[in-house]
Amino acid sequence: MNPNNIITLTTDFGTTDIFVGVMKGVILSINPDAKIIDITHDIEPQDIYAGAFLLNSAYSYFPPGTIHVGVIDPGVGSVRRAIAVATEQYYFVAPDNGLLSYVLCKEIVKSAVNLTNPKYFLPQVSNTFHGRDIFAPVAAHISRGVSLNLLGEQITNIAQIPISIPDASETEIIGQIIYIDRFGNLITNVSHELFESARKKRNFIIFVKDRQMRRICLAYAEVSAGELLGIFSSFGNLEIAINAGNAAEILKVKRGDAIKIRFQGVIK
Amino acid sequence: MNPNNIITLTTDFGTTDIFVGVMKGVILSINPDAKIIDITHDIEPQDIYAGAFLLNSAYSYFPPGTIHVGVIDPGVGSVRRAIAVATEQYYFVAPDNGLLSYVLCKEIVKSAVNLTNPKYFLPQVSNTFHGRDIFAPVAAHISRGVSLNLLGEQITNIAQIPISIPDASETEIIGQIIYIDRFGNLITNVSHELFESARKKRNFIIFVKDRQMRRICLAYAEVSAGELLGIFSSFGNLEIAINAGNAAEILKVKRGDAIKIRFQGVIK
Amino acid sequence: MNPNNIITLTTDFGTTDIFVGVMKGVILSINPDAKIIDITHDIEPQDIYAGAFLLNSAYSYFPPGTIHVGVIDPGVGSVRRAIAVATEQYYFVAPDNGLLSYVLCKEIVKSAVNLTNPKYFLPQVSNTFHGRDIFAPVAAHISRGVSLNLLGEQITNIAQIPISIPDASETEIIGQIIYIDRFGNLITNVSHELFESARKKRNFIIFVKDRQMRRICLAYAEVSAGELLGIFSSFGNLEIAINAGNAAEILKVKRGDAIKIRFQGVIK
Repeated sequence: MNPNNIITLTTDFGTTDIFVGVMKGVILSINPDAKIIDITHDIEPQDIYAGAFLLNSAYSYFPPGTIHVGVIDPGVGSVRRAIAVATEQYYFVAPDNGLLSYVLCKEIVKSAVNLTNPKYFLPQVSNTFHGRDIFAPVAAHISRGVSLNLLGEQITNIAQIPISIPDASETEIIGQIIYIDRFGNLITNVSHELFESARKKRNFIIFVKDRQMRRICLAYAEVSAGELLGIFSSFGNLEIAINAGNAAEILKVKRGDAIKIRFQGVIK
Repeated sequence: MNPNNIITLTTDFGTTDIFVGVMKGVILSINPDAKIIDITHDIEPQDIYAGAFLLNSAYSYFPPGTIHVGVIDPGVGSVRRAIAVATEQYYFVAPDNGLLSYVLCKEIVKSAVNLTNPKYFLPQVSNTFHGRDIFAPVAAHISRGVSLNLLGEQITNIAQIPISIPDASETEIIGQIIYIDRFGNLITNVSHELFESARKKRNFIIFVKDRQMRRICLAYAEVSAGELLGIFSSFGNLEIAINAGNAAEILKVKRGDAIKIRFQGVIK
Repeated sequence: MNPNNIITLTTDFGTTDIFVGVMKGVILSINPDAKIIDITHDIEPQDIYAGAFLLNSAYSYFPPGTIHVGVIDPGVGSVRRAIAVATEQYYFVAPDNGLLSYVLCKEIVKSAVNLTNPKYFLPQVSNTFHGRDIFAPVAAHISRGVSLNLLGEQITNIAQIPISIPDASETEIIGQIIYIDRFGNLITNVSHELFESARKKRNFIIFVKDRQMRRICLAYAEVSAGELLGIFSSFGNLEIAINAGNAAEILKVKRGDAIKIRFQGVIK
């Protein structure tokens, strides 16, 4: 795989401060032809879990060779490593704190290095802003074709955060809300595949808080405004939404809350 | 008109989630040379009216051939059409739900098509995220020179939302607040031309809620901080503002509220 | 110095409205090869002071020749001048209201002009949006190589806002919180150099509100979550932070509040 000039940024830096702009300045100082794309900078400060989920949901829509930079970095300046990973199709540059946990469930690692070669950092490395001092310059150098081997020594273990897996039995699936989007839609960890394979064409009831649903829609507009619906979302998983409303607010749901799907009737 | 590589995005997706980043990944996967410019992503969720107003206020500042993508799409996954429109100078790609209503008051349509050819979509089209699956790839293909005729069949009717027109008599204009900007400035639907032609050089009083103004300023700084003023805004229409203050909050005004201009004295 | 194609934008326009998108359209209409980078648009409306601080904190990370546009412009449409400044390495385009105060403490001015030549503006100049009508087109023309001399007459005086300088004696430094970032970290005006030169290797106590600290950390993670720390920040100055917490909220501190560092013991 050849790197291309596209570098994406996923951070919790917000856009109120200059952190993101500074990272872009550093990248362009090294590779003026870089094309920098923001995935999001509005992850809740230090929420590695949300960062891991969102990076995973976005990265594969970019062209092969894209360099994905993730910086949610509560341990900046401590002993946590900074790493770069090459997979079949992409590069990832991030702190080694679990931010790549979801991605590396899907991607096969071809090369992973501990970023220790200061030649590819800014001349002065602070203890507080490795986005600027390490991750941005390393990504820019990769986009210019620098091999991962030059950036540091190979590693074989990469930090993982616990990823919640739904619990499926003959009669039910117990899942979890793993992300809430801007519209208040509740994204669960129940994939379309798991749902269909456990359901075996039976009827079902979805329980969220004190509410129940007995069918899954193909589009928000299938129900009236204000009505609750289940839908297989653009993230690929079961999503609970309220047409033209904010499900998280109305149902008072937060990330980590359970969702239950109970199957009924005869297996077909 | 030849398309150029500039693609603008106007959506209600926000920047907290990854929706916009994913659209950009899809575009760059089809046309790596695309230059993607955000107009705004912070339109209130599903507010087609604001989207129509803002798209109209921005599009004409871009170079001829620019492809403008608008996605405020409460009906995604329902029967509403997805369309592409070519005018003398621009392309527009959007759901057919009225989002182009203001633009098409000014632009002359040269070609308009119902986007039905899946060859120009992503291979899998969801029911919830046509921004990614239809609008982004179609815009990218247009930017590479694909003719509208290949994208679907010609249409002649395009959805319209009702657009409020001021009511002007010999003695007064009754207008409406049609947009409130980030500074709390109140943008009305009273254009400079209408105002001058109805006024006929007479004196006037502008009524907003329980407040009155008897002159129109050329600059915010003409009045003291905290004072109310009328001004012909950068949007081209009469704007009610408070110098160094938030008129919407202080006057407790919301979109749709009336504004009255009463003319006095002798027509000159 | 040759201009390059990179133009940065630092404004208080927010991203909810279309102001920034429109500026980008204007720039690309003049120079389609411009690379436009957002530093931030979320400066508090009309907060020249924060704009000056942030612009200064970001500009030097960009490649030589970069054109930095700043628009925090409460006096738009009044008599305040619009200016362009060339320094050894950069260009700055801004209203002449003090927005360049911090930058010009560091940069040596090679040329500064009052922007008076309408040939390089949009054909119609409003009284409310010089970002679109003057600053964007002037920056685009500079990026195409137009000399500052063509843009207007040379000036020698540039507006300055008062910049708070810490007060250092034999026994203490009285400084100020000059910026609060998105994480609630408190950036002071006490530079690392001043601190060390006044400290003369003595012990010290830092006072902020009713709290005290007796050491300065190298990384946030040196203290437990919730604990207060002093650190020399990525902005280069002493920063007061709470690990994994919001210092501004918890300490109820606002910009302009004092910070005191008292030195103790024998000078070494």
